[in-house]
Amino acid sequence: MPPGRVPLALPRAMRLVRFQPPGGAEPRLGLEEEEGGGLVDLSGAEPSLPRSMRAFLETGEHGLAAARRVLASGQHRLPRAGARLLAPIDDPEKVICVGLNYRDHCLEQDVKVPKEPLIFSKFPSAIVGPFDDIVHPAESSEVDWEVELAAVIGKTGRHIQESAALEHVVGFTVANDVSARDWQMRRNGRQWLLGKTFDTFCPLGPAIVTKDSVPDVHNLSIRCSVNGQLMQSSSTKQLVFRLPQLIAWVSQFVTLRPGDVLLTGTPPGVGVFRKPPVFLKPGDEVRCEIEELGTICNKVV
Amino acid sequence: MPPGRVPLALPRAMRLVRFQPPGGAEPRLGLEEEEGGGLVDLSGAEPSLPRSMRAFLETGEHGLAAARRVLASGQHRLPRAGARLLAPIDDPEKVICVGLNYRDHCLEQDVKVPKEPLIFSKFPSAIVGPFDDIVHPAESSEVDWEVELAAVIGKTGRHIQESAALEHVVGFTVANDVSARDWQMRRNGRQWLLGKTFDTFCPLGPAIVTKDSVPDVHNLSIRCSVNGQLMQSSSTKQLVFRLPQLIAWVSQFVTLRPGDVLLTGTPPGVGVFRKPPVFLKPGDEVRCEIEELGTICNKVV
Repeated sequence: MPPGRVPLALPRAMRLVRFQPPGGAEPRLGLEEEEGGGLVDLSGAEPSLPRSMRAFLETGEHGLAAARRVLASGQHRLPRAGARLLAPIDDPEKVICVGLNYRDHCLEQDVKVPKEPLIFSKFPSAIVGPFDDIVHPAESSEVDWEVELAAVIGKTGRHIQESAALEHVVGFTVANDVSARDWQMRRNGRQWLLGKTFDTFCPLGPAIVTKDSVPDVHNLSIRCSVNGQLMQSSSTKQLVFRLPQLIAWVSQFVTLRPGDVLLTGTPPGVGVFRKPPVFLKPGDEVRCEIEELGTICNKVV
Repeated sequence: MPPGRVPLALPRAMRLVRFQPPGGAEPRLGLEEEEGGGLVDLSGAEPSLPRSMRAFLETGEHGLAAARRVLASGQHRLPRAGARLLAPIDDPEKVICVGLNYRDHCLEQDVKVPKEPLIFSKFPSAIVGPFDDIVHPAESSEVDWEVELAAVIGKTGRHIQESAALEHVVGFTVANDVSARDWQMRRNGRQWLLGKTFDTFCPLGPAIVTKDSVPDVHNLSIRCSVNGQLMQSSSTKQLVFRLPQLIAWVSQFVTLRPGDVLLTGTPPGVGVFRKPPVFLKPGDEVRCEIEELGTICNKVV
């Protein structure tokens, strides 16, 4: 803002985070001033707000307005050092996932572009933080990466119209839909759930970036690299079904609630369809990045 | 107990319920003195206990011991009339389901008995109470019933051994794994989730019957009738994979947590495999019953 100008309104754009303060104290809600920047201690500033992100989002505009005031106040700032960033939400009712939702990802596996969204799920127990480890399960030898744009629901709805769908979204975050291809594709009666939901198979973060900060969520570059080698690089322009369609579709079946996380599918470049296939092994580092939203980086152990 | 004998210990067996008191007040935790009998107002007697069943179960033996004391006290009793029984748990982290887990149910659809449990899921948003309506979705014309024994997890665990598995179970309840066969079997890339998780597709109840009350959970008669006509009638003896195997299996993949609900599969007699097939329509009444646990009865609307 040029010097001398007075802000007419509180900032609408926010990066909502959860963090653990130095010393291992209880998780708190916070705001990130910019990606990787200083933190603002929302729970410290507003002790009456819930400390669960789901419960916070259930307060709707009440909680968001409080967060905007705290951010604008310039108070309650914490140095980043020593604080551990956690998954911005770890207790959603649902983690809803979409398969085969980038055109090129369908091509790389020689399947038709679906006429309807293909919906599956992970259990919330799979969620870990933006810089936490992915635990390679002994039960799989085909662990793979999938960078995905995730939307977080902010308002309850069922049978939502496409035209109103984005009103139900509070913001966006980066997800890695880690997948054990052996369990997804050949075991469990070909139901994908188990291969998708091992503990630690859903790194999320670094922040829930409120939708006001993102000019066009369907025009963001999206990338994944493993040990520094670029493996996936696309744009959310390539989504087959965009967020309004996905939200309208899913809400035909289920009531969407604040905190629900919707992973929108992955672009081409996953390990299983490389020639020869490449899978993750302990020691690997997976970096998932979406323009405007940020980067998560998870080591495989 | 013969007259003159004094009880040496508090009762271990309990029927944990959630209910809405007359007048539409906030849901409370309670105990059912016997199936369909009077209620004991646990939340009224112990206001410091959480009112979410999941949060209550997270307190472990602390909460259960308090409930036993309240039950033994003979105080805080409420007449049943006017109280509405709710799903005994409506906020689990996971609703884990098992497919093809009765031998005869595999035979009726001409598929092999699985060598490993087949695991799928519903979202918790599908849960409704023991006497609530099942809403027939306009999107399906093949809505079917499935009576199932459900176990409720009481203690966190991962990589649980079969020999220790039942230590992680707090009790059992009756479930109806309502299924839209068109969506389960022919749509959504044959991923079962959507067909299984329409809102209201998981009636649960009437109570979480603590495991001490059930001499042998693998020897209970299990039945479902539609409009008074017996459709499913079997015994939990017929389970392909029993609870210790299922819990050990699922905990290879995910951390089980207090409140998680595990539906163990359905016996033969579902509508889709009848000749000709029979599906539910508005006005139908589905009654699911398991020996020792009780009956749930849900009208289709």
